[in-house]
Amino acid sequence: MESEPRVTRIALISGGMDSAVLLWSMRPNVKALMFNYGQRHVKELEFAIKLACMADVEFEVADLIGIQHLIRAGSQSGSELPPEGHYTEMSMKTTIVPNRNSIMLSIACGWAAATGCDEVFFAAHAGDHTIYPDCRADFIDAFSSVMQLANAWSPVTVWAPFVGKTKAQIAALGAGLGVPFDLTWSCYVGGQVHCGKCGTCVERREAFNLAGLEDPTTYAS
Amino acid sequence: MESEPRVTRIALISGGMDSAVLLWSMRPNVKALMFNYGQRHVKELEFAIKLACMADVEFEVADLIGIQHLIRAGSQSGSELPPEGHYTEMSMKTTIVPNRNSIMLSIACGWAAATGCDEVFFAAHAGDHTIYPDCRADFIDAFSSVMQLANAWSPVTVWAPFVGKTKAQIAALGAGLGVPFDLTWSCYVGGQVHCGKCGTCVERREAFNLAGLEDPTTYAS
Repeated sequence: MESEPRVTRIALISGGMDSAVLLWSMRPNVKALMFNYGQRHVKELEFAIKLACMADVEFEVADLIGIQHLIRAGSQSGSELPPEGHYTEMSMKTTIVPNRNSIMLSIACGWAAATGCDEVFFAAHAGDHTIYPDCRADFIDAFSSVMQLANAWSPVTVWAPFVGKTKAQIAALGAGLGVPFDLTWSCYVGGQVHCGKCGTCVERREAFNLAGLEDPTTYAS
Repeated sequence: MESEPRVTRIALISGGMDSAVLLWSMRPNVKALMFNYGQRHVKELEFAIKLACMADVEFEVADLIGIQHLIRAGSQSGSELPPEGHYTEMSMKTTIVPNRNSIMLSIACGWAAATGCDEVFFAAHAGDHTIYPDCRADFIDAFSSVMQLANAWSPVTVWAPFVGKTKAQIAALGAGLGVPFDLTWSCYVGGQVHCGKCGTCVERREAFNLAGLEDPTTYAS
């Protein structure tokens, strides 16, 4: 019996379209890590699990329930509703979960070091930069350098291959890879169907539109 | 009625002697963060709580139970027993919890950003450097720079004021501050009393001895 090729790469996936494209672009040499951080739209986690199953890759869920009380702020998990409009608007700052990417990437790099993986990928993209400093190239490069230092006995490199791409470009890439976009979830509100008005719904809709792709999403408005 | 002065600094405390000295050197402008990461010597957490109460500072426990399965490795939480001897020996590598300090510091910086604190302190010291790359000055400086980038809307600086000090120097400093060393716990084995033989017991004993202080610890051997 042939042994399975060893998996050396980890991808952070959220259930959204960008990380789904990342996962499809990396398989089969990838295992997926997803997070429950008390997000209002925890529904995305179910989508992440379905996507990992469909991609036929190993996955784990990191449950941040025990630290939620420390980083609960803004509209992602508090009582405030997520804002409507584009990501570039300052109102979107309420969607910031304090230090989220550093926390998630640190855990992913720990899992990597513990299991003999040496690369961690996540799907930060060009549209994230205005509001989320921890999606910018300078953060990603610096964070990756720190992970080399921190894990000197088993160094891990962090990559964000979409950091220079727009969401429309990622959508086009995903269409070429056959990503099942109907199995992805973006909406921050987390209702029965996508709300169509919150920041990530607006961006999702626009991405399919700009890429000239059919949008498989049902929007409430 | 006068209002309490605002707390702007966070200290990571473990229940051990180094972070107890850190806490005493920082109070009253400090709140404490401690971690349950499935460590064999979870007993240290009880000591950390007692210390925070005695120091009369606010504290929170970050419970990493939901990510333990990802970073469980080596002798700190697995079935392997902690090694005996000095920290500088390569056998101590089994005590490494993958990416532990990055994970803990990221969470602490998230709590800082969420609550208007701008500094996070931890008690890495000179004796940690051989085995633990995430206790070295180059890691700490680089990590602090990354935290400025990641939290651009509310930057956090990370400090390790003992990074150039030996454990004996820290013990001497603590004695001057009146730290209740009898309420600190070091032993990795986590039994009824300190084992006296594991890496951290050896270092603890030596520190009191070199500093010319009475050691209030009961050791099994």
